[in-house]
Amino acid sequence: MALIVQKYGGSSVADSDRLQMVARRIVATREAGHDVAIVVSAMGDTTDELLQLALGVSTVPPARELDMLLTAGERISTSLLAMALQELGQDAASFTGVQAGMRTDEAFGDARILEVQPSRIETAIAAGTIPIIAGFQGGSADDGETTLGRGGSDTTAVALAAALGADICEICTDVDGLYTADPRVVPHARRLPQLTTEEALELTAHGARVLHRRSVEIARRHDVTLRVRSSFGDGAGTWVIDHPLAAELISEPTIATPEEAPVEQSIVSGVTHTDDQSMLTVVGVPDVPGTAAAIFAVITGAVATVDMVGQTHTSADTGLIDFSFALPGEDATRAAKALQREQERLGFRTLTLTDDVGKVSIVGDGMRSTPQVSAQLFEALSEEGVTVHLIAQSEIRLSVVVPMAQLEHATRVLHRAFGLDAAEVATVAGVAA
Amino acid sequence: MALIVQKYGGSSVADSDRLQMVARRIVATREAGHDVAIVVSAMGDTTDELLQLALGVSTVPPARELDMLLTAGERISTSLLAMALQELGQDAASFTGVQAGMRTDEAFGDARILEVQPSRIETAIAAGTIPIIAGFQGGSADDGETTLGRGGSDTTAVALAAALGADICEICTDVDGLYTADPRVVPHARRLPQLTTEEALELTAHGARVLHRRSVEIARRHDVTLRVRSSFGDGAGTWVIDHPLAAELISEPTIATPEEAPVEQSIVSGVTHTDDQSMLTVVGVPDVPGTAAAIFAVITGAVATVDMVGQTHTSADTGLIDFSFALPGEDATRAAKALQREQERLGFRTLTLTDDVGKVSIVGDGMRSTPQVSAQLFEALSEEGVTVHLIAQSEIRLSVVVPMAQLEHATRVLHRAFGLDAAEVATVAGVAA
Repeated sequence: MALIVQKYGGSSVADSDRLQMVARRIVATREAGHDVAIVVSAMGDTTDELLQLALGVSTVPPARELDMLLTAGERISTSLLAMALQELGQDAASFTGVQAGMRTDEAFGDARILEVQPSRIETAIAAGTIPIIAGFQGGSADDGETTLGRGGSDTTAVALAAALGADICEICTDVDGLYTADPRVVPHARRLPQLTTEEALELTAHGARVLHRRSVEIARRHDVTLRVRSSFGDGAGTWVIDHPLAAELISEPTIATPEEAPVEQSIVSGVTHTDDQSMLTVVGVPDVPGTAAAIFAVITGAVATVDMVGQTHTSADTGLIDFSFALPGEDATRAAKALQREQERLGFRTLTLTDDVGKVSIVGDGMRSTPQVSAQLFEALSEEGVTVHLIAQSEIRLSVVVPMAQLEHATRVLHRAFGLDAAEVATVAGVAA
Repeated sequence: MALIVQKYGGSSVADSDRLQMVARRIVATREAGHDVAIVVSAMGDTTDELLQLALGVSTVPPARELDMLLTAGERISTSLLAMALQELGQDAASFTGVQAGMRTDEAFGDARILEVQPSRIETAIAAGTIPIIAGFQGGSADDGETTLGRGGSDTTAVALAAALGADICEICTDVDGLYTADPRVVPHARRLPQLTTEEALELTAHGARVLHRRSVEIARRHDVTLRVRSSFGDGAGTWVIDHPLAAELISEPTIATPEEAPVEQSIVSGVTHTDDQSMLTVVGVPDVPGTAAAIFAVITGAVATVDMVGQTHTSADTGLIDFSFALPGEDATRAAKALQREQERLGFRTLTLTDDVGKVSIVGDGMRSTPQVSAQLFEALSEEGVTVHLIAQSEIRLSVVVPMAQLEHATRVLHRAFGLDAAEVATVAGVAA
């Protein structure tokens, strides 16, 4: 018997039929002898619909009011799921983020969880009640309710699992696990039976959208056993875990056993791609000591993280340098504005900004000890005629910015080049690696 | 300068255009120098739509979960109205019922307000922020949020006005006041410039739906000056108040002055009708002492209030009596079930239940000192061929149950008979007297 936190995403609770399917699944988990706590997102497109309402009366909706508005979405899904469970004869009760003890800071729209005080959830579980917790939301000590930003329901689930000391946190979604690449782009993509948290971090930070990066960070910090699986299928899903699975989890008959890791472990675990990138180029910078540092300082002052390392192209005849940065779209606009304000001081000629680029990343724990990976990557891309604008690297990741028109091709090339292609085309429509 | 609580109903905030109109109206009230606190209902049909969602997963939605669900409605309307006000450059903030200090009991779905602790609302007003408060909802000390039942937003507004010591509580709605009868049924109905709280209580308890009965009770108990007016028009509306209007309200140029009361005050102030009635007849009751009392005890044990007094028809040849009761539809079904369970003990033959009846009531403070009113009523109805099934009376009200087919006709007959017909047909479509 285990304590399992299950999170169901918006598409899994999009209508009454799916709510009832989720309810039956929860009952099955309970009948197998486990305790459960359930985290749900807002139904289907509710969040986007509420956002449209806000834009109907407000050009820039104020963050506090937007959070008051958006938190309505999970009230609806949690109460309906609790009703569906009661209809099946189960004792169930819905809890808002605040009621579940999700204490956050006051950064409306993108709040951080400061502390989880899950006493009401623990009381409910002890009393045999299935708690249904609103994902994506919490409350500041003083004032209103807050939201955790995109993907926040994953974060709620993992933080709650950590606070409850849950055995497993299951992220139940519309795909049956994390894949070596987005199966819509790479038909030969394979489901990954197991990943390290560091691999999952790099994948989620650079394109994979099945899981939210922040939730992986919390899982890693608090040693939460994370599992991504289908809301409705019976597949084993993907375990995100840094150590071999505990024997009791594997032997537990009601928890599907993860497959053995492939005997011949690939150096690269997955290939992700994202089109949410813009390339910002600072053109004609005087080649004077300190100028590069000053430009970097302006950019890092304007955006939270410079996701992609910049590259320089010198133009020998003029003594001027160009700097290029790849950043998520909104950040690129913000960085460009900050640079424009400082143009006189920095002395550059002009800025160019294009979103006609995408980013492909390869991620794998095996890259740590395999220095020839980058050579292999460039060879594969150049053989296939892919232009590389920029390159960035971490210990277990290598990212390249390529023209948008070549993004999906480059993804398939690298998937094949690093031996990830399955013998057969995947039958499950996954969303991202 | 006054402190005005304004309540806007669901149809007044049904879409973004109306939200913006309401916002401009609030700004106008502020610019006239008044402090305001705003109470809003859920937008348009939101509450009914949420209820439909609940019925999609639950045959009998559990009350606690239903309240969690329904309270989402006012989160949406309050936050959007706060956004619309900020868009106009005003400082505004939304508050849930709990945040506004509406402490209720735990009767989910039909909670009573125990106490209002409006410190956060007072702080907001003092800081120049326009507080937008979710109507219809509150919270119990221990657990979740509750709803106040039908018409609860009026109750929220009046209770808040009492707690804040507001000068006026304005119920802003889609009609421009309370009428002598429903203008859809009685084309010659007139708007009432002023009513006593007791008259308003009788009208709202017996068919008038513009205002909720419980809100009038609270206004009466706490001496809140109540005014019903159009959300968008500039009419004076209807004042519900037991004393002459205070001079400062009348002289206040930005508060429309109520017209003078008609010189020749009519005995009857208004005629209401309602089709939400069923007639329950207990057929063949032995004429034995105590039986009537036993039947009454069973009925009053099953329903909150026996709205309409029963009548008996003796059947001389058998020594058996029939008792008839008029009750709101749901109550009648509940009372019938309770009687059926006790049929053996009570010894009656059978029950008949029909909803093919309606109730017409005349209400007026002048009836207190005019005993001939009932004779006048029966004469008018019999002249026009209206059958009277049952009759009930209070000091300032006289109600009759008539066949459904004669309900609207009877309403028009009484409106004319008691001198309420206006010279001209009302141009505003009102909803109820």
